Amino acid sequence: MPYGYIGSMKSTPGHRDEVVDILLRGVEGLRLIGCQLYVVSVSDTDDVTIWVSEVWESKEQHDASLQLPETRAAINKAMPMLTGEFTGQEVTVVGGLGL
Amino acid sequence: MPYGYIGSMKSTPGHRDEVVDILLRGVEGLRLIGCQLYVVSVSDTDDVTIWVSEVWESKEQHDASLQLPETRAAINKAMPMLTGEFTGQEVTVVGGLGL
Repeated sequence: MPYGYIGSMKSTPGHRDEVVDILLRGVEGLRLIGCQLYVVSVSDTDDVTIWVSEVWESKEQHDASLQLPETRAAINKAMPMLTGEFTGQEVTVVGGLGL
Repeated sequence: MPYGYIGSMKSTPGHRDEVVDILLRGVEGLRLIGCQLYVVSVSDTDDVTIWVSEVWESKEQHDASLQLPETRAAINKAMPMLTGEFTGQEVTVVGGLGL
């Protein structure tokens, strides 16, 4: 069954939208490497929290994506604008609507 | 922009899959009432945690769905199999792949 990842991060004040732009850049290309769903959201209750919900064909494909030069460049670019407060849940997707 | 909800619940021991079945029943019908995405997942690190990631055209449509007789019946059926430990995040969906 598909692999899912539900994560959050916090930007430093004023940098949330810049981080969101980085996260969304080139997202269509993820489809070619096993990503079925990649949803970026922002908190309704503060101005710094960003959520990412992902569905991949396999955990291996998700992990491989993190090693791509473009992914590493994006992470390096975003990191100085993040506080270091991350949450992350690895899950198995069991079904639903819109997959 | 679309409304998102990222929530989790914990089942009592041994009842996770039964709760998942309830959550997935009739999920196709949600599309007709404004739901774009409804992903049900289970934790990779325990046998009781269930995650639901939802995207709706609006918060109003999400809230209205909770008042439907079939939703209320499903909640009533699942509730005795849940521990009462819920998390929930209301978010604004800003983009991604697969929406």
